[in-house]
Amino acid sequence: MTTGGRIQHAGLRRKIVPAEAAAAMIGPGTTVGMSGFTGAGYPKEVPLALARRIGEANAAGAGFRINVWTGASTAPELDGALAAADGIELRLPYQSDPVSREKINAGTMEYIDVHLSHVAQMVWEGFLGHLDVALVEVSGITADGELIPSSSVGNNKTWIDVADAVILEVNTWQSEALEGMHDIYYGTALPPDRRPIPLTRPGDRIGVPYLRCPPDKVVAVVETDAPDRNTGFKEPDDASVRIAGHIIEFLEHEVRRGRIPRDLLPLQSGVGNVANAVLAELENSPFENLTAYTEVIQDGMLSLLRSGRMTVASATAFSLSPEEAAHLNEVAREYHDRIVLRPQEMSNHPELIRRLGVLAMNGAIEADIYGNINSTHLMGSRIQNGIGGSGDFARNAYVSFFVTPSTAKGGAISSIVPMVSHVDHTEHDVHVVVTEQGLADLRGLAPRKRARVVIDNCAHPDYRPLLDDYVERAQQGAYGRHTPHLLDEALGWHDRFVRTGTMARPL
Amino acid sequence: MTTGGRIQHAGLRRKIVPAEAAAAMIGPGTTVGMSGFTGAGYPKEVPLALARRIGEANAAGAGFRINVWTGASTAPELDGALAAADGIELRLPYQSDPVSREKINAGTMEYIDVHLSHVAQMVWEGFLGHLDVALVEVSGITADGELIPSSSVGNNKTWIDVADAVILEVNTWQSEALEGMHDIYYGTALPPDRRPIPLTRPGDRIGVPYLRCPPDKVVAVVETDAPDRNTGFKEPDDASVRIAGHIIEFLEHEVRRGRIPRDLLPLQSGVGNVANAVLAELENSPFENLTAYTEVIQDGMLSLLRSGRMTVASATAFSLSPEEAAHLNEVAREYHDRIVLRPQEMSNHPELIRRLGVLAMNGAIEADIYGNINSTHLMGSRIQNGIGGSGDFARNAYVSFFVTPSTAKGGAISSIVPMVSHVDHTEHDVHVVVTEQGLADLRGLAPRKRARVVIDNCAHPDYRPLLDDYVERAQQGAYGRHTPHLLDEALGWHDRFVRTGTMARPL
Repeated sequence: MTTGGRIQHAGLRRKIVPAEAAAAMIGPGTTVGMSGFTGAGYPKEVPLALARRIGEANAAGAGFRINVWTGASTAPELDGALAAADGIELRLPYQSDPVSREKINAGTMEYIDVHLSHVAQMVWEGFLGHLDVALVEVSGITADGELIPSSSVGNNKTWIDVADAVILEVNTWQSEALEGMHDIYYGTALPPDRRPIPLTRPGDRIGVPYLRCPPDKVVAVVETDAPDRNTGFKEPDDASVRIAGHIIEFLEHEVRRGRIPRDLLPLQSGVGNVANAVLAELENSPFENLTAYTEVIQDGMLSLLRSGRMTVASATAFSLSPEEAAHLNEVAREYHDRIVLRPQEMSNHPELIRRLGVLAMNGAIEADIYGNINSTHLMGSRIQNGIGGSGDFARNAYVSFFVTPSTAKGGAISSIVPMVSHVDHTEHDVHVVVTEQGLADLRGLAPRKRARVVIDNCAHPDYRPLLDDYVERAQQGAYGRHTPHLLDEALGWHDRFVRTGTMARPL
Repeated sequence: MTTGGRIQHAGLRRKIVPAEAAAAMIGPGTTVGMSGFTGAGYPKEVPLALARRIGEANAAGAGFRINVWTGASTAPELDGALAAADGIELRLPYQSDPVSREKINAGTMEYIDVHLSHVAQMVWEGFLGHLDVALVEVSGITADGELIPSSSVGNNKTWIDVADAVILEVNTWQSEALEGMHDIYYGTALPPDRRPIPLTRPGDRIGVPYLRCPPDKVVAVVETDAPDRNTGFKEPDDASVRIAGHIIEFLEHEVRRGRIPRDLLPLQSGVGNVANAVLAELENSPFENLTAYTEVIQDGMLSLLRSGRMTVASATAFSLSPEEAAHLNEVAREYHDRIVLRPQEMSNHPELIRRLGVLAMNGAIEADIYGNINSTHLMGSRIQNGIGGSGDFARNAYVSFFVTPSTAKGGAISSIVPMVSHVDHTEHDVHVVVTEQGLADLRGLAPRKRARVVIDNCAHPDYRPLLDDYVERAQQGAYGRHTPHLLDEALGWHDRFVRTGTMARPL
């Protein structure tokens, strides 16, 4: 395998080494900033070689572990392989790998769950410690040594800027036509030198299409042609389609009331099947000239771009099925005017999200009757994935939606509970809660009224009587009646699930 | 009493009426946007007259209630009087009045607790319904009919812009020299027309010194010379001084490590005695050329400005003791170059707080071992005041501090608990927790490590063994070991307090 013409810079071509040689440059205790965002643009060869090296060392009792920083989640070849080798001491800022998840919840791997817009600045501020190595996939290198980004941007600019040394993976599987699609903003700074970010439309380009890196800083270049993970999406299930329908009906209502423009406002859509279903349903909506200012471009969004219903989409990564990834690789150039990939500190920047007035749709694990949202923890203790960018978007959105099916585990879990077992988004940041049962518009409602509409509109009918009973007794017996709770019962549903396998009350 | 030369516009002079006549223009069901922010610049005459009118009507069974929107808290003459008359149906976005608090927690008055930076935009977006009347204190009216703001700006620009009718109170107690101190930004818009806010330094002036209002919209002008509430500050107690000491030591350490500039970054300080104590201690610190980008200017901040240790302060209101208010009224003109009062959507704007890199110090009711903060509710149900601007600042700060004495009620309450009973600031937004016991720097720590430093550094020694015991058992028995909690005990301390009057475990 050869990257052929992808490496135009002679000096960097001379640094091509096998993955094992590059992995040998990463020693125990190293902190590595890797590329990758939702299974796109992560390094494919060096992490596998490194996992083999670590696995062998650890089998001999070496205790070889590294710290892994990324954009967001990656893929089995990165998180999975390194975790399986017991090679990760600390992971941040987001992950969704099942092997890592087990280790984190077993207490044998550390994980810090960070707002995605906060990561780059925390690194620059020095709050997370020193970054030793940047390990970044690119789709090519120009004759001047500029780096053509890959299918995600994530924190790559920051990793390259701050790391002592840079290892590049040049991936020929990525389309050459990605060149020109990225917008890398080099105007960031530490305070007191920060300036307004000059972006006022989702499609604005305010930077350059390349990542800059002094060639001297590159210690190794590795070639690959391995594809992005690109897991497929499930066909939208009935619950997802109904959730999408409620949201579209709400948007139509808001447009009629004059509270949202006819072409809507830039859409943000979280990662996953429900989000993808909402996008798919927009294809059948009356809305046109849609735009997106979001984290990832999933199948549903690419489809809206293809049909012309969406005019432009800004994100930090693709997150496509294998079929759509193949399509994109064929015709990437046709999307050049309509897709912009940015660093995640820009795709998720509070300044920009608030300015643009984003309509933010994110998934929840559970919502409580007062509108607090748990996005991260099962039964209060067990982390699922992480908060990702949902906080960046929800806090600053024009309208913040949280969506979830009303039950999980075949009805054993109600996603609407008296009190969430972990709070990621407070009542102050949640405008609209949507389940397949219906939509609760919480804007301008005091807590007791919020409880009424959440239960009536969103809870599953099997759990409504239990919620009604809780609310009624809490309004009589609570320490205060602003946000009435019964302290000995508020988390009782979760406790019951852990003890009995269901939140439903035993007969 | 006459406002003498304070009303230079002849047409508006002709609209002077007694407070009772103005109050008569406000009928049942009216939504009134009032001025006022932490006891500064609220209307003093019309709310009292209105409370009398409502009280008489309600004594006759009329059910006369209005909705009251403000900047933040006001004073007994506004919140207290209207609440005592049972005249408030719905109150937002913040309040601290004891009579209102009782009604809210008795479930007889509705209250919506909103991030202070969100209020104006939610009104413009139409999410909170229609505003009928703006009732705003000003310190004067120019010959052109421009309004000279008073000792707070709050949401006055928005109230005047969106209300059907405007009632002005012209207050001669306020210094004439306030003229020119305000900076009213008229560049806001609804998306998709929002533009970058051109502010890059705390002292920048980006607007005009006056509020604009078409004279035709003014339906009444009322004269007053009543002072702002201006409650005094307590002498800093030992706990406050120790909290301040820990923060200053931390800042010195960060400066030595090169993570914060020598002149620090703009300070934000919440309202209250502890915050005031921190500011007072800065007078004895090595830091110079300080700046502030904050909500309110309290005594401690005015003192730093007077001594020259602080060069400029931006806020939306004063919140002074009677002595400092008298001083300011005498010499306000001397502060013209060093104090800027802005609308609260600017003082608290995420875009500006993040750009400036604010050091945000806010009070907490309680913190939990994993770094979640409760700012609003006692024992999960009973609201104390509200979240105010703490979320605007904490989420976007360079460093976000939360401060609280380690115990309350003579030791019966631990401010460090296994799980907070209400979450206003999630683990993702809390960098540093400080009590008189010490300081916990949570940056870059995974949850179990956060628990260790919070307990060791911040908890009161009387409660440390109980917390250690909880953590130890949770790490064995929890459903997951990322954020280990025991669901049947997590809120047990609060439950014990409600049942027995103390969180301490009975012997």
